[in-house]
Parts: sequence; structure tokens; C-alpha cells
Amino acid sequence: MSRANLLTLLSDFGLRDSFVAQMKAVVLGLNPAVRLVDVTHEVAPGAILEAALALESCWRLFPAGSVHLAVVDPGVGSERAPLAIEAGGHLFVGPDNGLFTLVLEAHPEARAWRLREDLGPKQSATFHGRDVFAPAAARLTLGRAMDELGEPWAEPPNRRCVRLALPEVACEAGRVRGEVWHADRFGNLITNLRASHLRGRGVRQVAAGAWRGALARTYGDVPPGECLAYWGSAGYLEVGCRGASAARLLSLGPGAAVVIDTD
Amino acid sequence: MSRANLLTLLSDFGLRDSFVAQMKAVVLGLNPAVRLVDVTHEVAPGAILEAALALESCWRLFPAGSVHLAVVDPGVGSERAPLAIEAGGHLFVGPDNGLFTLVLEAHPEARAWRLREDLGPKQSATFHGRDVFAPAAARLTLGRAMDELGEPWAEPPNRRCVRLALPEVACEAGRVRGEVWHADRFGNLITNLRASHLRGRGVRQVAAGAWRGALARTYGDVPPGECLAYWGSAGYLEVGCRGASAARLLSLGPGAAVVIDTD
Amino acid sequence: MSRANLLTLLSDFGLRDSFVAQMKAVVLGLNPAVRLVDVTHEVAPGAILEAALALESCWRLFPAGSVHLAVVDPGVGSERAPLAIEAGGHLFVGPDNGLFTLVLEAHPEARAWRLREDLGPKQSATFHGRDVFAPAAARLTLGRAMDELGEPWAEPPNRRCVRLALPEVACEAGRVRGEVWHADRFGNLITNLRASHLRGRGVRQVAAGAWRGALARTYGDVPPGECLAYWGSAGYLEVGCRGASAARLLSLGPGAAVVIDTD
Repeated sequence: MSRANLLTLLSDFGLRDSFVAQMKAVVLGLNPAVRLVDVTHEVAPGAILEAALALESCWRLFPAGSVHLAVVDPGVGSERAPLAIEAGGHLFVGPDNGLFTLVLEAHPEARAWRLREDLGPKQSATFHGRDVFAPAAARLTLGRAMDELGEPWAEPPNRRCVRLALPEVACEAGRVRGEVWHADRFGNLITNLRASHLRGRGVRQVAAGAWRGALARTYGDVPPGECLAYWGSAGYLEVGCRGASAARLLSLGPGAAVVIDTD
Repeated sequence: MSRANLLTLLSDFGLRDSFVAQMKAVVLGLNPAVRLVDVTHEVAPGAILEAALALESCWRLFPAGSVHLAVVDPGVGSERAPLAIEAGGHLFVGPDNGLFTLVLEAHPEARAWRLREDLGPKQSATFHGRDVFAPAAARLTLGRAMDELGEPWAEPPNRRCVRLALPEVACEAGRVRGEVWHADRFGNLITNLRASHLRGRGVRQVAAGAWRGALARTYGDVPPGECLAYWGSAGYLEVGCRGASAARLLSLGPGAAVVIDTD
Repeated sequence: MSRANLLTLLSDFGLRDSFVAQMKAVVLGLNPAVRLVDVTHEVAPGAILEAALALESCWRLFPAGSVHLAVVDPGVGSERAPLAIEAGGHLFVGPDNGLFTLVLEAHPEARAWRLREDLGPKQSATFHGRDVFAPAAARLTLGRAMDELGEPWAEPPNRRCVRLALPEVACEAGRVRGEVWHADRFGNLITNLRASHLRGRGVRQVAAGAWRGALARTYGDVPPGECLAYWGSAGYLEVGCRGASAARLLSLGPGAAVVIDTD
């Protein structure tokens, strides 16, 4: 696979401590010309699903051959495997704890390698982001082969990776049931429902908490202060509010049920 | 206009979601060599004036030919126009909702174009930052002509753009009245008063809330814990406090009256 | 010294105002090709020791010849000197207020220069980060000599620099006493104790607040919810908690005593 010399970084390290800078220092020591793009470092500490969703929302938009370094790693120093994954023309580096669940679900052909732990200039038992994952990711941006960095996992490697139990979508006669899996900064409630779940049926009404309404296209379609449901920019059904926070207005958050009544 | 291959980004997207990374992904897909600099993404959701002030405080410091992408866009998907503006040797891209009020006031010669909405690889009705503005801005960093990206607005285009009603400065006999329009992280109260408002008169006293005092040069001119007024680094009168927050100490914020007694 | 064309930035400017972008604008105007890496801008306002610790935790990881711009500058505009320091194969730029205490302690051979104050395109009495330090740092990334930017301080310059009074480590018979000097985002309590303080003795027990326990290697060595002491990734003794915040669980923070019972 050709490489884009581009590395994205995603973590729960926050921006107050120097953890992110430490990872970048190691990367730039190995590849001074790499492009670095932060996805987010404000994932709640240890929140693997939140990180998986943040990664899912953006990785396909980057050029093919990009490397995505994702480190939310509550099991650092334990037996959980350090991984590199090749999927969909991109490369992923991080711990085997479910972070890559959505990548692997979308790409059954994905291949995985277990990384060696002696790749970095420093070694610690508590900061593999700096000492294992960053040096592996940097080498991948340089075009190094996976086999130089670790060993292939048993075939099909994909099945061996840890997967998170994702909220399920129930497709019933006349309705599709899903749930909110993220509330963004604006209070938009992003659900796990995609247009494909409708199997061609039309949307009659959307219900979330105490609210129900028709499908709209964008905020301007409803009066200020009103809620609306729409297909969001990531392809999922969202419930938002024009000029305000739907999460606050409806008192809903991750896990809340969302139901589409279909034709 | 020659281009600096430099793009600044300003938004109300925050740093927890991946919105900023999504915009950068689109930009880097079009111009892998562009320099990206974040101005801020912590503008309060939908706070157009706050964003206009943040932009005003820094754009002139960047090299001529820089492109400034500013997306605080509560009207996304409505009839508000997507714009590119050329002013003062720089380029600006964002929604026509008042974000560029201060740029346009300072540059009556500015020219504006209405952007096409099919510039990006993806299309959505709720994320024009990624789907319209980022691809337009990326092309401008590459030196593409405005006319490739949209149509000129009626002449003089400048007058057609939405302007925010800015807080006014009243120049009276013996006094100049303005107001606080931003409190920074340190609690410094930045006003809308500039030296030019004095028309050559001297400053006898500055009053803000319960405080009044003479003009000082910098924090060290007053004892710790004391307030002072000074010409700030952006050219506006500020009221600060040595080693503490004037905003907290004086219980003042945006909109509070500030009066200069003049000679 | 050869230069890495890499500049790190550390400040207490926060990410909501445009102060950091203003510094970067000035730097990029002088050196459009420089690599910029943010260490953190979320140091508490005026917290010099916190900034010194953040710098200490990462600067050595960057390539030799990197320039480190650190601006936590409550005395801006006063008599405190603006400095550039050469130490350990790296360059440091910032105010002489103790920010570089740990660099100077580790490098008695360090050399310091007092910067001229007319280096930047703008001049203010309240924002030397933009007007003095950023232009100096940019020129250092370009390979300019220290003597072009200011004057050497009296020999040995190192001794003349302001030093913070650091928390002390007491090495007694059978115990080593130190203290917590930082709590990170995860609630790990980072102490000022290093393995070298043990002078070869083994660790029998660690005590912090109401907690005491043996030395572990990593979080996985204790059950979820339990605290542990371990040598952290920066080389200091840390007290953490598996899957939770030790700072919150033990109600401890900077200044709290930590004692190692030795063999």
C-alpha cells in the first residue's frame, strides 16, 4: 500500500498534560516530514466506544494510505495486544481493546499484526502510546512494511481482534429501533440508525424521548427552538434543535431509544 | 494575489468532536502541502461576534496571501450565502452571517464571491464547513481563482454582506464611551476603544464598573491585585488586574460600559 | 549547534483566545517551513512551576536542535529579562522567571542570552510572547546565532537565572520522603521521587495519604479500583489507580507527602 505521509492522532490524553506532545516528539524523531493531524484528545478517560465513534466519523475522509494512531488504553501494560491493522486502504495503530470495532465490521478483509514492544527509543509499562504505538505509526508513515514491526495474527486475524458490543438496530414491521450513541458539542443527538436500515421504506415519524416529528433536511426547516430529525453529515440519523441543544432540551444522551415509524 | 499556502481555521466546533479533523482531512486531500494553523475552535456555539473578534485579533499577523477559514454557521443549510472574500491582501471563506463584519469595515474595497455548493467530495445540509467551505479554502491556498469557485456578488459586493451591529463608541466633550466586548482567559476586559477615538486628547481617567484609575503601560506599573487600564496588544483599551482576573474582581463582562475621561 | 527546524510551544494562553495563533503567525512570517508542535497551552494562568514540569516531561524527546518556546509570563513588561538558553543540545526561549529551573539544574553548562526587545514586527508591553519571544524563537529555528538576538549574560550565566524553589527530597535512614508535584488528567499523582534517590536500596512500601502499598509495574498488576505505586513514564514515582483517579480516591494533589520505606 502506498503511504500518504500523514498521521492522525486520537487519544484520551487531554490537552493539559504533555502526553500528546511526547508522542509527536517520538514520531518527528523518526519522520521529521510527516503531516500530523489531531482528531481529538478529549475522549473521556478510558472511553473506548467514544473513541471508536470519533475515529469512524473521520478516517475515510483522509487520503488513502494515511496512518491513524488511536490510543485509549486502560489496559496498558497488561496482556492486551498492541496492534497495527490494514483496512480500506488505510492503516491503524493502537491497542486491541475494541477501538477498531467499527473499522473491522466494515472491512472483513482487514489484516492485523501484533506489534513488537521494543520499537521506541524509550520503554515504559504505562505509556505505550509513546513507547510502542507512536514509533510503529511513524515507521508506517515512512512506508515500512508491517512485517518489520510485528507478526501477523492467526488467519483470519480480523476475527481475533476484540470487538465492542455495539448498540443494536431492530428492524420490525413498521418501525426501526435504534439508540443515541453520541451527543456532540451542539447537543445534536447522533444515533446508530442509517438510511440502509430502512430497506427502502419511507420515514413517517421519528420519536426520541418525549419528542416526535417528521424528517427534515436541515435546521432552517424548523422554527428556532424546535427539534428536528435529519440525516447527519456522517450518514446517521440525528435529532437536533435549531439554535439550541437537543440533548439538553430533551434530556437525552447516549443510550436513549430512538424509533423511526416507517411506511 | 499570490498565495501563502497557509490556511487558518476558526470555528465553534470544539475539540472533543472530530469536526475540525474532518475539515482538515478534506483540505489535505486537495492540498497535501498546505500549512494549517488553528486560531480557535472554542468559540461558544453560534457566537458570531465572538468569532469575528477572534479573527480580527490575528489575521493581519499572518503572511499576505493567507486564507482564513471561519465557520460559525448557525444558519447552515438555510438561504445564507457561502462566501469567499478578498480583502487587505488576504482571503476569507465562510458563511455570510456577519463573521467578516470587522474585515469589511476596515476594507471597503473588499470583493466577495458566492461559493458554489458542489465543491467538496461529500455533500450534506448540516456541515458546510466540511462540504463547501473547506474545499473552497483548500483550492484558494493552491492559487485557484475566485471565479472558479463561485460568482461575484453585485457591485459593490461588500455592501451586500451581512454586518453585525457592533457596539458603538460615543465621543463626547470630555469623555469617550465604549464597552467591553471580550474577556480573555486571564480576565482582561478588552474594550472597543482605540487610541484613534481620542482624536489627540489625553486620557485623564478610565472608569469601568466600580473601578476608576489612570492609564498605565503594563501590569508591573501597579501593585499586585490592583486593576489598571492600558492599550492592549491588539490596539484596544483593556482593563486588567495584576496577577488576577479583572473580569472576576470587577464582576464585568461583554457589554459593560467603559468610559475615558479626556483632557 | 545544528537546528532541527522544529519549534515547540508551551503557554498559559488557553485555546479559546487567539494568543497562540498570533505567536504562530509571527513565527510563520519569519520561517514558513518550520514544524510547530504544541506542548500545552492549558497551564493554569501564571503557574510557572506547572509549566516547568510540562516542559521537563517532554523536551528531551524532541530531536536535538529543537527550539522550545515557553511563555508563562506574569511579569511581562516588568524588569524580568527575556531569555534564550542553550542547554543539552536544545534551545529555550522565554521569560527569566523560573520556567527553565529544571533545564538549568540538569545542565550546569547551560548558556543564557538576554534577548533584545525589538525583534518582532509589532511591539507591546503586555504580549512579549508574540512581540519578543516568538520572533526570537523563529530566528533560532532558522539557524541564526544567539549573538544576533541579544547579549550573553555575565558568566556563569546559568547562576544568574531565576530558579524556583523546588520541593525537596529527604533521604533518611530507611525512608525517602518527597511529594506530589502534579496530578495528570487520569488522576495519577506524579511525585518528585526518582530511582536515583534510593541510592541502590530496594522499595519496601510506598505511602501517600491514607494509602500504602508495594511497588508495582503497571495498572494490570492490581485489581480494578485499587491504587498502586510505579515508576512512571517520565522516570518519577507515581501513585495511580487502576481504572480510576488516585487523586480523587485519595483526595491528594500537588504538595501531598509521599514516603518510600526502603530496605
